[in-house]
Amino acid sequence: MQHATARRGPKPNPDTRRKLLDAGVRMLHTGGYASTSVQDIVGAAAVPKGSFYNHFESKEAFGAAVVDAYFEPREENMRALFGDTGMAPLDRLSAYFDRRIVACKKAGYAQGCLLGNLSLEVTDRSVAMRERIAGKFEAWAAFIEECIREAKEEGAMQNPLPAPQLAQFVLNSWEGALVRMRAEKSATALQLFKQVVFQSILR
Amino acid sequence: MQHATARRGPKPNPDTRRKLLDAGVRMLHTGGYASTSVQDIVGAAAVPKGSFYNHFESKEAFGAAVVDAYFEPREENMRALFGDTGMAPLDRLSAYFDRRIVACKKAGYAQGCLLGNLSLEVTDRSVAMRERIAGKFEAWAAFIEECIREAKEEGAMQNPLPAPQLAQFVLNSWEGALVRMRAEKSATALQLFKQVVFQSILR
Repeated sequence: MQHATARRGPKPNPDTRRKLLDAGVRMLHTGGYASTSVQDIVGAAAVPKGSFYNHFESKEAFGAAVVDAYFEPREENMRALFGDTGMAPLDRLSAYFDRRIVACKKAGYAQGCLLGNLSLEVTDRSVAMRERIAGKFEAWAAFIEECIREAKEEGAMQNPLPAPQLAQFVLNSWEGALVRMRAEKSATALQLFKQVVFQSILR
Repeated sequence: MQHATARRGPKPNPDTRRKLLDAGVRMLHTGGYASTSVQDIVGAAAVPKGSFYNHFESKEAFGAAVVDAYFEPREENMRALFGDTGMAPLDRLSAYFDRRIVACKKAGYAQGCLLGNLSLEVTDRSVAMRERIAGKFEAWAAFIEECIREAKEEGAMQNPLPAPQLAQFVLNSWEGALVRMRAEKSATALQLFKQVVFQSILR
């Protein structure tokens, strides 16, 4: 009973939930999902172990919530940058990837993108996490698609392939550039991505 | 002493080494590096535990040897396919990716590429494995580069970017298509890769 009481707790504290998710984003991004235990997470969040199950019914449910928590601030940043209609659409897209490259360099070309990492680590084993990740990729591609659509409308590019397909390809290629970046620990693949995307595809 | 004798064994058996590597390729491809223990590997290979350390000084050294064992038959296949000069160079490249797409479908869009998986899982923690993986990507890109170089020489494509850069980009984008494939569990990203690469880049 003691245990059950501790697990259910009184009322879930949103601050505890936030701490758990912040620790989860950080730890899953640096160490991966399989290598990070619930014990590690509550330790890093400095909350009582029982509180974890007040907020998340399983490690998998937590993993799916971490995907949301990871994407949320990034989506906010994209909304701000891509919403800046004072810049030409392809310039916005170019600036976005330039910022990402600077961030990757700052991180020592480690960690990469949590969505890509989890795609390779957990999607064969967790439908819940896989679907959450797939949804974020869609939301991310929509920002890129909007830039490409506007560029096409303004006559700033001639590539006849439709904007949705080009956007998905650009996003997938970015994920691939991050894979190669991790293997090489350099910006080469990221810079090459920018060069080929802007010189051969979005033109 | 018993233990030390068992570990050092008499003379390493190449058949045991092969069994360990075959099990390693299979298990690292399906379950990842962190989730697979030395115990799991010797169990799957059905060899005595001590024999592992007759052949590999550490799990990390084993992981690097698994990278070689994974790439070797794939390199052989590429040598055969890309060496078939009866086919036009871009047709060879197209046939190569078509085969890869069929193989991915057969695997239920799971597992993907072990080099990509390990790039995201271990390269921040193991220099030995990272360098081995980076070398395989280079060897792989060289096959693609040769096709592109020949296509350029024959006037079959006009893209002014140099063959080495185009080849690296194509390979990295393929890895990215595999990331997205894993998240979507479908061939969509792979087919889109082929479409954009052959319609917008290698032209």
